[in-house]
Amino acid sequence: MHAQSQNLLSNIRIVLARPSHPGNIGAAARAMKTMGLSDLWLVSPKKFPHPDAEAMASGAVDLLDCATVSDTLEAALTGCVLAIGTSTRLRDLQAALLAPEDAAGKALTEAQAGKVAIVFGNETFGLSKEELACCQALMTIPANPDYSSLNLGAAVQVAAYVLRRMALEENFAEPELDAADLEEVERFYAHLEQTLIRIGFLNPASPKRLMPKLRRLFSRTRLQKEEINILRGMLSAMESTKTLR
Amino acid sequence: MHAQSQNLLSNIRIVLARPSHPGNIGAAARAMKTMGLSDLWLVSPKKFPHPDAEAMASGAVDLLDCATVSDTLEAALTGCVLAIGTSTRLRDLQAALLAPEDAAGKALTEAQAGKVAIVFGNETFGLSKEELACCQALMTIPANPDYSSLNLGAAVQVAAYVLRRMALEENFAEPELDAADLEEVERFYAHLEQTLIRIGFLNPASPKRLMPKLRRLFSRTRLQKEEINILRGMLSAMESTKTLR
Repeated sequence: MHAQSQNLLSNIRIVLARPSHPGNIGAAARAMKTMGLSDLWLVSPKKFPHPDAEAMASGAVDLLDCATVSDTLEAALTGCVLAIGTSTRLRDLQAALLAPEDAAGKALTEAQAGKVAIVFGNETFGLSKEELACCQALMTIPANPDYSSLNLGAAVQVAAYVLRRMALEENFAEPELDAADLEEVERFYAHLEQTLIRIGFLNPASPKRLMPKLRRLFSRTRLQKEEINILRGMLSAMESTKTLR
Repeated sequence: MHAQSQNLLSNIRIVLARPSHPGNIGAAARAMKTMGLSDLWLVSPKKFPHPDAEAMASGAVDLLDCATVSDTLEAALTGCVLAIGTSTRLRDLQAALLAPEDAAGKALTEAQAGKVAIVFGNETFGLSKEELACCQALMTIPANPDYSSLNLGAAVQVAAYVLRRMALEENFAEPELDAADLEEVERFYAHLEQTLIRIGFLNPASPKRLMPKLRRLFSRTRLQKEEINILRGMLSAMESTKTLR
């Protein structure tokens, strides 16, 4: 991850407004840490600190230890250049309603200049009118209209995932395979053809489309050196079987 | 949501392999339902049914009621045309490693033709080598390298979110025509193993990693029905050669 991406993520603040269940605070902390976020604020949590929060945080207890608790959302937004509320409710449609990707793009753009808060409401009631009024934009996670009730920790996970993806701008390297070079692959095909003739599966007088079909099969993947060795070892074993006959 | 998108999502099966904590099963069910998924399979869950699962499922208890429990992953993949494993571990990098968006695109493309499984491993140990060998592709959720441990329910939420987002975009390539289903592929592996033993290339007393390596090779591609027929024809030819000796 580039230093700049990490800097952007470190400028994202997750604010949980009036969370009822301490387990959800822990789940949110874990979700944040898996995606490289660390700045957690809690507005009037019902129970915190709490063993359930620590249990659900798992390896992210450090985020709970560093979390800041405030009485009001205004206080939790101190120093922020932008606050984006979250909602699944139609009644909150008054603000510009952003998809997570659009909200993340906006958040990261502003995070170049300063702290940006993503604000999650109470599990049952969502964000209050007063809390919504503190937000300059509103994000919604598109969900099943018949059951749109994401768990609070799960909603934080989705938002944090999208933020990280956008911050990284999709540099997802393929793992390095020990790929065979094309000459090795050609030698394998020659060996395969010769063996298939010797075991009587391929008739050289009427080869049909057998070899092109087998080439097509193996060319869809990238054969590794070790795999070529295994396959040619198999062919040699077949040939010696034939020779012994 | 268009009917086609919903049809695609209804062909996505979420498989939890050996989950330890019933609460995570419930969280996964809730995550699924919020994103319009409903087909949940559990392979040897440690505790299920369980009150913790129902508590965490919240309004998605119906998915728990309809969940199918099986003894093996193979059984849970019955009827599937594609299985995509999930992992955050570097050791699993042998298969083509897909970002969630790429995995979802692949899954939804194939879901036009049949059931597609997304397979999640045990909370602590992930997918076993044997379970990974049942998967034709591997998805990873890009995470903080210093703490990549997503909660199981949170991982299902991210995957389900990405699937729903992609399903709503609705532009999918034609599915691979004539793809062999997983049972046919398993029968090919069984035939291959048997033949390799008969030609003396595989020593059943000391099989080493030969079959897993061959599975890995073929699982990087999607075998077609015709290709399975060719390969099994080759195996039969080898066997008759051996018999005639």
